[in-house]
Amino acid sequence: MMRRGFQVAARLGHHRAFLRAPRLLPRLNPASAFGSTTDTLVARFCQEKKDVKDFALPNASWCPDMLSTYQEFLEKTKASTWIKLPSFKSNRDHIQGFKLPLGLTVTSDKNDWRNFTRCIQVEGQGYEYVIFFHPAEKKAICLFQPGPYLEGPPGFAHGGSLAAMMDETFSKIAYLAGEGLFTLNLNIKFKKLIPLGSLAVLNVEVEKIEDQKIYISCVAQSRDEQTVYAKSSAVFLQLKLEEEPSQ
Amino acid sequence: MMRRGFQVAARLGHHRAFLRAPRLLPRLNPASAFGSTTDTLVARFCQEKKDVKDFALPNASWCPDMLSTYQEFLEKTKASTWIKLPSFKSNRDHIQGFKLPLGLTVTSDKNDWRNFTRCIQVEGQGYEYVIFFHPAEKKAICLFQPGPYLEGPPGFAHGGSLAAMMDETFSKIAYLAGEGLFTLNLNIKFKKLIPLGSLAVLNVEVEKIEDQKIYISCVAQSRDEQTVYAKSSAVFLQLKLEEEPSQ
Repeated sequence: MMRRGFQVAARLGHHRAFLRAPRLLPRLNPASAFGSTTDTLVARFCQEKKDVKDFALPNASWCPDMLSTYQEFLEKTKASTWIKLPSFKSNRDHIQGFKLPLGLTVTSDKNDWRNFTRCIQVEGQGYEYVIFFHPAEKKAICLFQPGPYLEGPPGFAHGGSLAAMMDETFSKIAYLAGEGLFTLNLNIKFKKLIPLGSLAVLNVEVEKIEDQKIYISCVAQSRDEQTVYAKSSAVFLQLKLEEEPSQ
Repeated sequence: MMRRGFQVAARLGHHRAFLRAPRLLPRLNPASAFGSTTDTLVARFCQEKKDVKDFALPNASWCPDMLSTYQEFLEKTKASTWIKLPSFKSNRDHIQGFKLPLGLTVTSDKNDWRNFTRCIQVEGQGYEYVIFFHPAEKKAICLFQPGPYLEGPPGFAHGGSLAAMMDETFSKIAYLAGEGLFTLNLNIKFKKLIPLGSLAVLNVEVEKIEDQKIYISCVAQSRDEQTVYAKSSAVFLQLKLEEEPSQ
């Protein structure tokens, strides 16, 4: 979601303090480093916004596998174990009411910002995806169907598009699982190509939270789990979004 | 460019043979694993195509830094040490006349394919980039200006967009430097965020070629080299594009 950790911390001289101050937070509870619980974070993240479109909903471009897996997980949300995450055009909508941590300032003056994985708005041509999160077990599923604008080798998804999909899923889960805001590291091992228009299921798990870092992993595979497309891991830095003062 | 190595090789039972057969190619010359020289590969890759648009050319959205660095490297191409690589809408245009190696078949039936890093065609909104390659030294420079559709944290480039830009640059250079076609691994350490609309310079180097693998690295930084945005490394598998039989 935000990968400014080193930059921000170094600029303010807090970096070493961050990484060397486990005593301040001797045993980090995954979602309580800054006093927020996962429930609070999820409630805030998933609140209904009538004026903002949720792109993580089925459309006519979804392949049968994508649609039926979506229905399967939607069914699981009824038991309140899984939660479907909304996905807005911009992260500005997701973090409305909060300012970026540690004095990070926005320098762009363009007004049609789009979260990278929602950059193509023509249904089915770019990213089609939806993320389901299991707060209690700190794991998630991302259903990802790459369209023809995400091509690398002819007929298959660009490795960079999968890398971005992983990073995007990681960032949302790292935030909800423990206020992980900034990617420090992303490591991907590619195994097989994903055919355009087909479903890849990304299984994401928070491995551990230690010294204000969140360690998270992913296996991307076919729905029947017979084909592994890639494996990856990432490390996020925990930082708190600060509430904006009310006007 | 193409990350089908494991998939293709495993399917045809060639994978182990590939990785265990250094004796067939005991001391790989960077660009002669399959008899092609870098000059041949570059000449084929850079041949003028009048019916295909080259997107790696200046437009009104380029910031002054991007434009002047482009001019600086364009000047260097006159001495034939650096080469400006063309960038087409689809890799299909780049590999025209060649089929994918080892029976890799194209399964998509969509007809508006776009190379992922050329997915957004509105000038300045998405990816603006150009790659210069130095064949003799097996190094390259990618000038990258992320637009507002590549946003992650408000005002800054999504880490996934930088990951994809690195992967795309790596793939082109791995191919030209030694027919590296398939990414096996991509590892990125993020340091600071790239402001939207600004220039990031990716310095790419082929580190070594060994056992049919190409090891390649990248440092992404500001033009004045005072700000390092990220460092990365990747490993590509050498595979040969096969010429299509003439009709």
